[in-house]
Amino acid sequence: MSMGSVGQDSATIISAGSALTAEKLLDSGVTAPERTAEYALRLGDDALILAQRLSWWISRAPEIEEDIALGNIALDTLGHARMLLTYAGTAWDRSEDDLAYFRTEEEFRCAQIVEVDNGDFGRTVAKNLIMSAYFYELYSRLVDSADETLAAIAAKAVKEVDYHLDHAVQWTLRLGIGTEESAGRMRAGLRDVWPYLDELFEDEPLHDDLEGIAVRPSTLRAPVMERLEVVLAEAELEVPEVKQARTGGRRGEHREALGFLLAEMQSLARQHPGATW
Amino acid sequence: MSMGSVGQDSATIISAGSALTAEKLLDSGVTAPERTAEYALRLGDDALILAQRLSWWISRAPEIEEDIALGNIALDTLGHARMLLTYAGTAWDRSEDDLAYFRTEEEFRCAQIVEVDNGDFGRTVAKNLIMSAYFYELYSRLVDSADETLAAIAAKAVKEVDYHLDHAVQWTLRLGIGTEESAGRMRAGLRDVWPYLDELFEDEPLHDDLEGIAVRPSTLRAPVMERLEVVLAEAELEVPEVKQARTGGRRGEHREALGFLLAEMQSLARQHPGATW
Repeated sequence: MSMGSVGQDSATIISAGSALTAEKLLDSGVTAPERTAEYALRLGDDALILAQRLSWWISRAPEIEEDIALGNIALDTLGHARMLLTYAGTAWDRSEDDLAYFRTEEEFRCAQIVEVDNGDFGRTVAKNLIMSAYFYELYSRLVDSADETLAAIAAKAVKEVDYHLDHAVQWTLRLGIGTEESAGRMRAGLRDVWPYLDELFEDEPLHDDLEGIAVRPSTLRAPVMERLEVVLAEAELEVPEVKQARTGGRRGEHREALGFLLAEMQSLARQHPGATW
Repeated sequence: MSMGSVGQDSATIISAGSALTAEKLLDSGVTAPERTAEYALRLGDDALILAQRLSWWISRAPEIEEDIALGNIALDTLGHARMLLTYAGTAWDRSEDDLAYFRTEEEFRCAQIVEVDNGDFGRTVAKNLIMSAYFYELYSRLVDSADETLAAIAAKAVKEVDYHLDHAVQWTLRLGIGTEESAGRMRAGLRDVWPYLDELFEDEPLHDDLEGIAVRPSTLRAPVMERLEVVLAEAELEVPEVKQARTGGRRGEHREALGFLLAEMQSLARQHPGATW
């Protein structure tokens, strides 16, 4: 269904009862302004890389039920990445697949927290807790963006992220107040991931240029931290006392782990450009 | 929601508007008769191993859209495996996770076709085409089983498999009538998988014991083959002329590839029996 071009004042990109998809976004003929595209690329890369990490669990979780739950969360998150990368790509005439498969590591703009290796299940739960709290606070503000495409993407994503957050909270409680072993692994997982938290809240000049369009990362710190502290207290866990890592994901400085992930993710598409031979 | 025990004549296991799930099945208190459980185990293992193979693609397909499509098919199929293994397990007081993670290779009852390595995308499309045609014909008959739990599982599965078949057919056409390269890969994929087709249609003494309950595999050959021949003709592909392989999956004789798959799938659960530490 083509919806024609969508102006800044129009509200046609989401019609009643039909949520946004990457295809509809493309069909709408909308073009992202350059700076807005750079912002969408950051959010899209966070979602894309987190989804890749999560999908690893599908055949490896400790319960089949959890295989399916993490798989569904990964696919939802990949859906957010598709919308965000598709929108970003409209500024540069590049498709979501171009952006996912044909950028070098330095061109990725994800925060380093999503790159961190899966580790054990405790670390994955810790990462999911932080990222779903972050996404929830982010998207629930982005629905008010003056950029109606970003607002529409956020409106779709926030409903799904609400469920992901609930899932992560349940697991945090289950591990935290479970056995000595499970609590120990949850604590270790939190310590592994916590040093990458600050990067999520760092403002860049980009955000100054996008007043009313982007959500300023620094405004998310208080609500995200408050949410995390409540959950950790309930799970009888403490906020880890660890130094923040040197990061730089938003400038294209990534952890070694991203290189391996991209090699795997990009190899088939690069071997056979044009998707399917 | 507990539904109490379900007798052979009762129809309470599916209530209006609420499809069967593994949890509801367990809550219903139903117990599979021994031979019926052996049959459910065969179907469950086919679904489980196929789903594991498919989930590999989630971060590796040639398009993000296809990552998501194959991921969804894998998760649907894993859902079928959960119901079938949960039901089988009621006969032996074993959970779906027991059956998935704590059986040896020789105890698995899947047909060898689902074990075949993913290979390239052409081989995966060929395997999905065959398996979804097979599942469709199987489940659309199993809905009439005198065993109401099997009938309820089939009623849920057939709707999803209908979509999987459509997806596989679309890809078969796209590759078959695409480029010389894509058609060549599709032909190679069909040749790789075709030798394992016969095993799906082999009757065992088990099926004699389950008259009216199980679907006799040999009765599926004609409708599955007819379906495949129509699609291949439309895709300008031929039925491969290849010898059938020596198989034996239903007796626990498997390909080497299954060993590697199980090692990966089972390692976490076996390291930490009791699921989450």
